[in-house]
Amino acid sequence: MSDIKVGLIGFGNIGAGVVKLLQENAEIIRNKVGTGIVLKKIADRNITGYRGVTVDPACLTTDVNEIFDDPEISVVIELVGGYEPAKSFVLNAISKGKHVVTANKALLALHGEEIYAAAAANNVEVQFEAAVGGGIPVLTAIKGNMAANNFGSVIGIMNGTCNYILTRMTLEGADFVDVLKAAQELGYAEPDPTFDIEGVDTAHKLAILVSLCFGTRIDFNDIYTEGISSINGLDVKFARDLGYRIKLLAIGKCIDGKVEARVHPTMIPLHNPLADVNGVFNAIRLTGDFIGPVMFYGRGAGQDPTASAIVGDLMGLSRSMMAGAGRRMAPLGFLDKAIKTLPIKPMSDIISKYMLRFSAKDLPGVLASIATALGNHGISIESMIQTAHQTSDQTPVPIVMMTHEAREESIQAALAEIDVLDIICEKTRFIRIEDNLE
Amino acid sequence: MSDIKVGLIGFGNIGAGVVKLLQENAEIIRNKVGTGIVLKKIADRNITGYRGVTVDPACLTTDVNEIFDDPEISVVIELVGGYEPAKSFVLNAISKGKHVVTANKALLALHGEEIYAAAAANNVEVQFEAAVGGGIPVLTAIKGNMAANNFGSVIGIMNGTCNYILTRMTLEGADFVDVLKAAQELGYAEPDPTFDIEGVDTAHKLAILVSLCFGTRIDFNDIYTEGISSINGLDVKFARDLGYRIKLLAIGKCIDGKVEARVHPTMIPLHNPLADVNGVFNAIRLTGDFIGPVMFYGRGAGQDPTASAIVGDLMGLSRSMMAGAGRRMAPLGFLDKAIKTLPIKPMSDIISKYMLRFSAKDLPGVLASIATALGNHGISIESMIQTAHQTSDQTPVPIVMMTHEAREESIQAALAEIDVLDIICEKTRFIRIEDNLE
Repeated sequence: MSDIKVGLIGFGNIGAGVVKLLQENAEIIRNKVGTGIVLKKIADRNITGYRGVTVDPACLTTDVNEIFDDPEISVVIELVGGYEPAKSFVLNAISKGKHVVTANKALLALHGEEIYAAAAANNVEVQFEAAVGGGIPVLTAIKGNMAANNFGSVIGIMNGTCNYILTRMTLEGADFVDVLKAAQELGYAEPDPTFDIEGVDTAHKLAILVSLCFGTRIDFNDIYTEGISSINGLDVKFARDLGYRIKLLAIGKCIDGKVEARVHPTMIPLHNPLADVNGVFNAIRLTGDFIGPVMFYGRGAGQDPTASAIVGDLMGLSRSMMAGAGRRMAPLGFLDKAIKTLPIKPMSDIISKYMLRFSAKDLPGVLASIATALGNHGISIESMIQTAHQTSDQTPVPIVMMTHEAREESIQAALAEIDVLDIICEKTRFIRIEDNLE
Repeated sequence: MSDIKVGLIGFGNIGAGVVKLLQENAEIIRNKVGTGIVLKKIADRNITGYRGVTVDPACLTTDVNEIFDDPEISVVIELVGGYEPAKSFVLNAISKGKHVVTANKALLALHGEEIYAAAAANNVEVQFEAAVGGGIPVLTAIKGNMAANNFGSVIGIMNGTCNYILTRMTLEGADFVDVLKAAQELGYAEPDPTFDIEGVDTAHKLAILVSLCFGTRIDFNDIYTEGISSINGLDVKFARDLGYRIKLLAIGKCIDGKVEARVHPTMIPLHNPLADVNGVFNAIRLTGDFIGPVMFYGRGAGQDPTASAIVGDLMGLSRSMMAGAGRRMAPLGFLDKAIKTLPIKPMSDIISKYMLRFSAKDLPGVLASIATALGNHGISIESMIQTAHQTSDQTPVPIVMMTHEAREESIQAALAEIDVLDIICEKTRFIRIEDNLE
């Protein structure tokens, strides 16, 4: 059989990685697929300038229609990013009967359903392993070999910028602002880091994971999203004292047919493998009713790992084509018609443990007032740290408590009561805890 | 399309798990595959006795030929275990044009090539995700989405019995014999645990991983295999003092076209995620030239996780059949004709760091004698622990050294010289160290 011909839209850093991988490991790919995978056309608005890879100039074009209109091209890789024109490109490729491979988590999180419907109508596949966890083949695993499971939860550390910052804060006791500045200087954080540090990127990835694991549509706006910019050195220190690490976690759960989907700084126990996921590494942990807990760990971003996932998708599609298969799998692993719209649990209903940090005057009765308010809302305390008395009773002292499981609503109500007390000097801080990790 | 009909040979604990999973998650499976997967026939020598699952008695047979001769059955699951009659069953199924799913690592490690050749000749697939790491979908990942990579190494903790024993030795400071006895009483170790504790089971799994990662045949007898029965409490203690944990590791590497394949107790650094793989959990870590390091973690055995992997294989095959594909992938991910016979590096040529534990008389010049012998063989010391002086110079003192990287041959030669010295009281113990784990 002749080579599989591929079109690439978007010739940036990741696109150059795909070119490099297809060139360097061409023999491995041919030895596994049974034919070559060849980039026939590469389209970008700007095709001048060296990307670190050598391509035949005849492949390069500024006219994306050369890809759509080429009947030999059976797969289109979309690496433009963002919503438009990426979405139009993807829909256009699909309408021409071409399979699509993309790394565009934002596009899929917000416009996935429209794209998947078009793919079904045109009997093509949409693959997007690179959209979550860089090279880590977690989506393929969820849709593939783990597919028989009824998944209960999916938890991920999926943003390298946040994890790099939190890791340095933990190891060096540094404060958020200082580490962010250093990360920007090193190129680990964008000049405008909002998207990463406020959890939006993580929430995009969670939207995809939730759909794959639980077979449900999810409105991106229903995902509770809280970033790490408010985490300070003292939070990290107290978490450590209690035997925890703070990570920006994406948490998806499906309990009794209700879905939780939330992104926020979370404390996880030190002895759990997730606690050792440091720097720019990512990890995704799932539980299935038969497989039990399972974790995937690796580089969550970067040119090479992302290219690994994209070319892995290409090879999967190529193998199916070589075997005479048409569309072998729907984008989410579930048949499109089997996708449900499960209810999303409001944040007020979630159950979690919490670390509460009160800033209180060092006066008699303070602890009693706090404990009474918590007790009134059914919140019980698992452990407590109170630091040494201050020299002056005017200086606030931190009181740190770890609760047993409680409803978010109860925590919020209790803190609203406590924070108006005279003895409380600052708004009480709280961090959710995820420690039911076998 | 009508249901996919499957035959199951071997109705033991794992077989019952497959039945249970196909029953309990039938709707999920149908919603992903597009049709049902049905066990049409279950064959075992003994079909009486309750296995914890309810099956239609008409499905059960003691005549395995009912499966081979049923043209409706397109996939056969082999769960007999061992070499024969398992091998004949697998070859028989293949010769009848049926795909095969098996969990039989011993069979594949020793007779894989014959089975894969038969599968190619009959244009069917052989899938065996359950053979390595229980439910962890690592084989599918290596053959599937990570397939574009040139793999450099694969390292695994893949035997639950050994890891349970080593974990308890580490956490409790207990000795091997005592923990083994407790493990046997708890059912975590077999009455005859040789196969597990001497590393044979791990070596079977490594043989499969090496073939998948490096695309090479491997003679099982070429795998250096050393178990954990000689590890004692003091080894564990000194390893911990140096910042390491001892694990039974399977190590496969491919450097300059030469393959290393070895199973032995190994020290890994505490801060690496592999060090937190405790109890009956398994983990497999790989490095690929594009993906970088990647790790998979989960339950390495048990009825439910193993069933997850087996049914995952069934679903993959079913999806291909539904899409009109014949044989979509060769058993090892590489085309059969692309499988090489790479040379295996002899154990004497491997490069590693080592922990050496000398038992020496407490006399002047002892350290100099040891250091001189090591130096003569080009071995340099990275760190050392010498415990306090004893009351009598007749009592041997342990001297523990960690070397820089050295050739195994040099270590063996140096220890042969050292062990005949008058000052040395017992044969020197050594444990290999794997700490180049990003």
